[in-house]
Formats: sequence, C-alpha cells, structure tokens
Amino acid sequence: MVDGGFRTIWLKPDDPGIVQIIDQRRLPHDYCIHELKTWQEGAAAIRDMAVRGAPLIGATAAWSMYLGALGGEDLGEVAEGLLKTRPTAVNLRWAVERTLKCAEAAQTDLVTVIRKEAEAICAEDIEICLNIGRHGLSLLKEISRAKNAGAVNILTHCNAGALATVNWGTATAPIYLAHQAGIDVHVWVDETRPRNQGSQLTAWELANAGVPHTLIVDNAGGYLMQQGQVDIVITGTDRTTSAGDVANKIGTYLKALAAHDNNVPFYVALPSTTIDWTIVDGVTEIPIEQRAAEEVSHVHGVSDAGPCSVRTTMVNTPVSNFAFDVTPARLITGLITERGICDASVVGLASLFPEKTVSK
Amino acid sequence: MVDGGFRTIWLKPDDPGIVQIIDQRRLPHDYCIHELKTWQEGAAAIRDMAVRGAPLIGATAAWSMYLGALGGEDLGEVAEGLLKTRPTAVNLRWAVERTLKCAEAAQTDLVTVIRKEAEAICAEDIEICLNIGRHGLSLLKEISRAKNAGAVNILTHCNAGALATVNWGTATAPIYLAHQAGIDVHVWVDETRPRNQGSQLTAWELANAGVPHTLIVDNAGGYLMQQGQVDIVITGTDRTTSAGDVANKIGTYLKALAAHDNNVPFYVALPSTTIDWTIVDGVTEIPIEQRAAEEVSHVHGVSDAGPCSVRTTMVNTPVSNFAFDVTPARLITGLITERGICDASVVGLASLFPEKTVSK
Repeated sequence: MVDGGFRTIWLKPDDPGIVQIIDQRRLPHDYCIHELKTWQEGAAAIRDMAVRGAPLIGATAAWSMYLGALGGEDLGEVAEGLLKTRPTAVNLRWAVERTLKCAEAAQTDLVTVIRKEAEAICAEDIEICLNIGRHGLSLLKEISRAKNAGAVNILTHCNAGALATVNWGTATAPIYLAHQAGIDVHVWVDETRPRNQGSQLTAWELANAGVPHTLIVDNAGGYLMQQGQVDIVITGTDRTTSAGDVANKIGTYLKALAAHDNNVPFYVALPSTTIDWTIVDGVTEIPIEQRAAEEVSHVHGVSDAGPCSVRTTMVNTPVSNFAFDVTPARLITGLITERGICDASVVGLASLFPEKTVSK
Repeated sequence: MVDGGFRTIWLKPDDPGIVQIIDQRRLPHDYCIHELKTWQEGAAAIRDMAVRGAPLIGATAAWSMYLGALGGEDLGEVAEGLLKTRPTAVNLRWAVERTLKCAEAAQTDLVTVIRKEAEAICAEDIEICLNIGRHGLSLLKEISRAKNAGAVNILTHCNAGALATVNWGTATAPIYLAHQAGIDVHVWVDETRPRNQGSQLTAWELANAGVPHTLIVDNAGGYLMQQGQVDIVITGTDRTTSAGDVANKIGTYLKALAAHDNNVPFYVALPSTTIDWTIVDGVTEIPIEQRAAEEVSHVHGVSDAGPCSVRTTMVNTPVSNFAFDVTPARLITGLITERGICDASVVGLASLFPEKTVSK
C-alpha cells in the first residue's frame, strides 16, 4: 500500500499533455487530483502549495519545464518564472537547472528529452527515499532492540513524508520500512502551524499506512522529551549547508534544542539534492521566505456546514509569518542521506559526497 | 484606559448575589459579560476556561466560595469541588484555603466575611501586579537605554496579561507601564496553541491598550531570536517551585531553550501566590493537566457566516493534549515578583521571601 498509494505526481496515462498531482491543500478532508496543463499552472501549484516539500517541488518544477517545452515556450523564461515561486527550497533550482541544461544539450525532440529527464528525476527521487529509508531503519532497529522491542517513539515536524516527495518520503521512509518490518513504531506528529502540514498531511499519510501516531501541538514536543516519551526525532530539510546546518519548516530549531537538552537523538533525513554546497552558515546565508499573514490569521478545516475557513484573530492584528528556521549543525546528531548516515559537518558530508567537496 | 478597562471579575454593582466576569472564550470576537450565581457556575467558569490565568483562577475561586456561602452550602464541599477544576494552578488551592480558613474563623455573618476576603484577594492581586510592573519596568528601561531608545522587542507566550489576573497582568504589567512611560515597546505575541490565548487574548489586550505588537505562530520565536529580533522574553507561570522551576503554558520551555541558546534574557513574572513552597523539582513533582482532544482537533474563529468551529484533522486522528510544561530554573534569567527581581533559585527566592523558607 505504501509504495503505490502515495505517488504524488505523474503524467496522465492517456494524455501526455497533462501532469497530475494530488492537491495537498484539500487533504485530509478531500483527496483531489489536480491537473497541470501549462508551466504557469505548475508554478502556481508550487507557489500556492498544492504541492510542497523540497523533493516534490523539484519534481513539479521539472514537469513544469516539460509543460513549457510542450507549449513551445522560451525555457529560459520558464526557468526564471519557476525559480521565483519558493525562495528557500534548493531542489527547485537544482531541478530547473538540470532540465534546462538537458534542454540546451538536446539535439532533437526537445519535448521527449525533457520528459525523460523529468521521469528520471522522479525515479531517482523514489530510489533516494528508499535508500534513506534503509539507512534510517538501522537507527530504529537499534532503538527497538535497546527497548526490548518496546514501542519506538519518533517525533517529526511538518511533513517530510511521501507527500513531500514523489513517494515514500524522507523522514517517513525509515518509519514505513520499520512498520513493514514489524517493528513497533509510534509517531508524535507536530501539528506544524501555520499551515498544519502535520495534522493535515503527515497524520493522513500515517493513518493510510496504518502506522500508529498521535497528533500534538507544536508546543508539546519539549514536554514529551522531558518525560522520556520521545526516543528519536527525525525531520526533513528544505536546504542543507555544506557544514550541515538545516533550513526546515519554522519550529524545527525549537525541537532540536529540546532534543539536545534531553539527550534525544535528532536526525535530519535528506536527499543530497537539498544540499547547497555553496554555503556554510545557514543562519546568515539562507534566505527565509515570508508568507501571507492569512496563513496565521485564518485556519482551514471542516465545519458542520462543510469546508470552511475561520479567522482566529481580530481583523487588524498585525502578523509576521516566516516559513523556515535554521537548525545549526551542532544540534543535529546525524544526517540520513541516500548514501548513508553522517555527522552534520563539513567532514561528515565530505565523507559521503567526496566528489562535491573536491569540485569546490 | 489600562487600569480600568481590563477589570476581569467584580461583584455586580446592584446585585451582590451575582459575580460578573468577562467570558474569555468569546474574545477577541465578542466582549461578553458572564454572570455567576452559584459556586457551581464559578467552578464551571474555571473548568471550562471562561476565566483562566493563575491569579484570576484564584480570584474566581474566592468569589465562588462567597457564592457558596451565600447559598448556604457546606464550604468544605464547595472547596473540594473547586479544587478539582484545574490541577496545575497553585493559586486555586491558595485562594480556596485562604477563604476557607477565614470562614472557619468567622464568628458572625459568614457571607460578609468571605465577601471581604474575596475583595481583599482582588485588591491585593491588583497591587501585586502593579508592583511586578514597577520592578519589570526597570528591565525594559535598561534595554531601551542600551538601544538608544530603539524599540524594545519583548516576546511573550500565552496570556499572562490583565485578562489572566484581576487587572494589569503579570508579564504585561511592565509592558503597560513602559508604554505609559513613553518607552518604545513592541511585543511578539505567541499564538499559543491549542487554545490560542495569545492571538485571542494577548493581542486583544495589547490592541486595546495601543501597545504595538505582532502575532506569530509558536514555532517562530526561535527564528526571531536567531535574527536578533527579541530583546527579552517575559512569560507568566501557573506554578513555581521553591527552586525556581516554572510550570507554565505548554511551549514555554521551548522558548526558554531558544532564549538561552541566543543569549536573550528570559524572565518569568509572578505573584508569590504562584509559588509552591512545598516542592523543588518541577519536572518530576508538578502534575501536568491533560485536556480534551477537541482543543487540538478543532479551532474556533469567525467565518463569513459568523462564529464557527472547524475541525482541522481527520475524524479519527488520535490526539494528546498536555496543557503545561516545566521550564527548569537553569534556563530562567530571573523571576519578577511583587517584592523585586531575584534569581530563579532557592537562594534567590529566599532572599525575597525569607519568611517562607524559615517556616519550612
């Protein structure tokens, strides 16, 4: 169920002019397939967060480049338009540049070349997530052993799940594999204000996969760690520096501090495509996206009368809405990548990705 | 405006059989006066959080004892009923025991005796908050001076405002006094999930008092501190141990960790009535209240059609809802009490309250 059920983006089987995605803004209340027919619709899906999560943003950008090629558009302009949609995710730039380079090298049949590249990006993402899962699984197995097969309590923030990738997820891949292997896992799901990706996406995914979980408000993680109720924290990342600093959903840093204060291992699961090898210090070098005030002042859900948004604040309350924070490498126990687990440090990353550090 | 506008509990002027409160569940959208005619209605107001905040819970408990006396009830039973409503707030026990002792000592006219005691508790609370404000003001003045009169950015969590007390508030009292003294203050207001006391109460209070403020999600404070946007954190407390550990709204601990990690001073404002002199270690000794799942799964606000609750989760998502966490004294820069500011430690508290430590 897991490996097929959560595919998040694909070319419509009987119409290669249409890319289909799950409209994640309507989960968990409705499961809707949304169709993208132009690159602009792809850009809007990224900007308006019908899709989100670093790897899936990359995949959607690649498919948007394909739609641009199909429409006979200037791909340089398409690339520029796509890059403006979400400033923090490094995968966006990676996928756009990869497909653009591929287009520039194409001798004939540009559309087919880019389509194959988008398909390759998706296939690689699935393989990467599975490898992250296999490496992360060893950590969960170890905890399970240490607890004599007692429940392994994992806390996660936001959604670094199948819905954030093409399939499997990054932070969730080890969890799904552990669950399938019969390990007793239980996930504390951070609600993840303001957009509630935890309560709306992660809880939905885990419920569909039959993984035991409990939803908590973002404020609760510290208490649970104080009480010994968390064995490991695993989150995703939108951008990772060459020194292992991690820009992830706002609030991740607070959980890392709490984990550090309570000797709870704090791991970040990431495809190496989220690593920005050009920067070192996340706090000063990563631009943090600010999003609309309405994400904070209004909450979407279901009322007795159906889907509904409510304003929780007074009309004129001033609001600030930063989307990410940076967790310094010193608070991170390890990075779970597709090539293995390493220290969150220049040396750690270089040990797994020597070709990247040599090329600098 | 401040000192009169926020009075939260009073005896109805023309009917001493009725205690009036602001129904805080309906703020910020509606300002409603709620009437308490029996001690059971008082207990319900505490339990259902029509009133909340340690000092106001105490005041409401005292007035509920008065209503019990007025109704000719057995005050021992009334006390017992009241003590069951909220397990974490130490003021509840303090106010109930104080009025009960007073009742037991009363020779004649029990009702008048308890009424006077409830009035005294309210008058003392106002005086205590003003003194907390005066002591805290010195901290804000100092920051303002160090910043050459630049804006003093204060972060607060939950509502330790006038609405949490009889008037003025604890954490907010220094802010109101600073604002009235012409100091440029700006408050970062934590939303405070799950009940949103920040967006619904603190933002409302500050807006009414004309104090500049910005609402943020609970996840954002760490980022703001990393960016140098927070000069000081001031929160309240529901229960303080004799060693200076603080049980306050869930999430306070996470902000204290972030403040510590970024060298931001972290102060807790408290009337000494919140100190539980009988305990030392907050993490192991303070019982933490668990509240209903609906507080997490449902959000109250206003839709186009009027007041409305929406469910943000799937129907069957399992939820855990701990209401408080404990911030260890080691993370607290100082305690702002009605007698002055002291270290969060046995020695610090003993220096201000020698009579309490001697009596142990």
